[in-house]
Amino acid sequence: MQIHTYWKQRQAAFEKSLQAALPPAKTRPATIHEAMRYSLFAGGKRLRPILCLAAAEAVGGTARAAMPLACAVECIHTYSLIHDDLPCMDDDDLRRGMPTSHKVYGEGIAVLAGDALLTHAFELAARVPGWPRYSVAAVVRELAAASGSKALIAGQVVDLLCEGKKISAEELRYIHRNKTAALITSSIRLGAMSGNASAAQLKTLSKFGEALGLAFQVIDDILDITQTSEQLGKSAGKDLAAEKATYPAILGMEKAQSEAARLTRLAKNTIRSMGPKAGALQAIAEYLLSRKS
Amino acid sequence: MQIHTYWKQRQAAFEKSLQAALPPAKTRPATIHEAMRYSLFAGGKRLRPILCLAAAEAVGGTARAAMPLACAVECIHTYSLIHDDLPCMDDDDLRRGMPTSHKVYGEGIAVLAGDALLTHAFELAARVPGWPRYSVAAVVRELAAASGSKALIAGQVVDLLCEGKKISAEELRYIHRNKTAALITSSIRLGAMSGNASAAQLKTLSKFGEALGLAFQVIDDILDITQTSEQLGKSAGKDLAAEKATYPAILGMEKAQSEAARLTRLAKNTIRSMGPKAGALQAIAEYLLSRKS
Repeated sequence: MQIHTYWKQRQAAFEKSLQAALPPAKTRPATIHEAMRYSLFAGGKRLRPILCLAAAEAVGGTARAAMPLACAVECIHTYSLIHDDLPCMDDDDLRRGMPTSHKVYGEGIAVLAGDALLTHAFELAARVPGWPRYSVAAVVRELAAASGSKALIAGQVVDLLCEGKKISAEELRYIHRNKTAALITSSIRLGAMSGNASAAQLKTLSKFGEALGLAFQVIDDILDITQTSEQLGKSAGKDLAAEKATYPAILGMEKAQSEAARLTRLAKNTIRSMGPKAGALQAIAEYLLSRKS
Repeated sequence: MQIHTYWKQRQAAFEKSLQAALPPAKTRPATIHEAMRYSLFAGGKRLRPILCLAAAEAVGGTARAAMPLACAVECIHTYSLIHDDLPCMDDDDLRRGMPTSHKVYGEGIAVLAGDALLTHAFELAARVPGWPRYSVAAVVRELAAASGSKALIAGQVVDLLCEGKKISAEELRYIHRNKTAALITSSIRLGAMSGNASAAQLKTLSKFGEALGLAFQVIDDILDITQTSEQLGKSAGKDLAAEKATYPAILGMEKAQSEAARLTRLAKNTIRSMGPKAGALQAIAEYLLSRKS
């Protein structure tokens, strides 16, 4: 599996679909549709959409069927970044190498652009045809649960409340499991649902997602320390400056790196039984561990 | 039709359902679930839910079937108020006689409480069983469209961009149609969908909602000038202070009042053909015109 080729091909198809899935920038009122597109097309890696498409293929489905859900999870992810970057949250000026939404459009429009992307995600999710094992209602509930006050938002809340406080490794894991791993897991689950996955396949892929999602965040924490802002395309060293709890801060750099490797191995082992169809997912897990930005 | 008795009875059933439709306040993380409940149970009139239930009954459905959708629209309405009250938007300290969410919980949590309520609305909408003429997907799409960047959010965006500027009566109508009338209309449409309304009934009720929604906002503008903060339970005179365009400011008080009366008549005439089952909707329209807060 040439992961770079795979990623490039799927991403090209995804970018095209995402363009078509959003209202044109000139749709009235243009400001909000421009702001939605500004953040959505700011050069993200598209990890969650790619995982969604790869999970669909891993269970015998198609990238095409999973595409509306890949677009929906990217809308959710982008909304969460816009709101997270607000002055009243992480107060970040730089994201993916570009000024954040509130720096360009002002805070009010940034709040509304996030709201609009969140809302649009559900519109996209409700446009799928449904599949024998998974109704449209089940798809919408999956997306709402992963994005809601007991998952994605729970992680952001506890992250915000813990800023500047000493927290335990367990509390840190709670934040990461909710803030990062929940939507990554759900991206994979939604892809699998679009491929009409069996209950056993869905369970296996959920476990894969949880391990991969945690690994991803540990690596993110490490890169925040070891890389420059230029390399990351976002403000590096922010976690330290904000006295944020991170894996390297709590466990030390060496243990954090071995934890990332352990979680990646765990993820890969989990889907070994799925065979070659899950090759892209295996390769993605491997690639994430070695990434430099 | 004794509108006060009707309203009281339906509201009591609604409050009970809404309590059950939200995660308990102690659900981890407690802060966000407390914040969601704080704004949701701050003594709102429940206009949108009551309209939703009354519309269901007007087409031969039941309040019980419409209840999850009544809860969903109230979640949307409350999220929009929380975000609208933020310092970067309308910057309001008082709402329904109580300190606004960001005054109690801080801006970060207020943003997230709004996000959580918006997300939860879709979870609730996706829990309905669907009806012969209206699938769960159609219900979710209806809610997303009414709340999205071409409706509710469009109204907030243009409202925000127009602050301190001279605008025309037409621009003002655009703001009100989107910011206020769209969700009111959708509340009515969703209730009708839960009653398996015919296409003709849905069309008639949509027209009713559009006229009623505009009338409601014109009356709101008038009350902002004529009533005290104590009477309104929110900061009175804010529109003037913020140099906001309002109907009284653009048309003069007398013309604004006759416009409210005209729109109310229009709404009532629209559903005359629906007969006694639409009596509650008629009475609500009448009551809104005479309200003092």
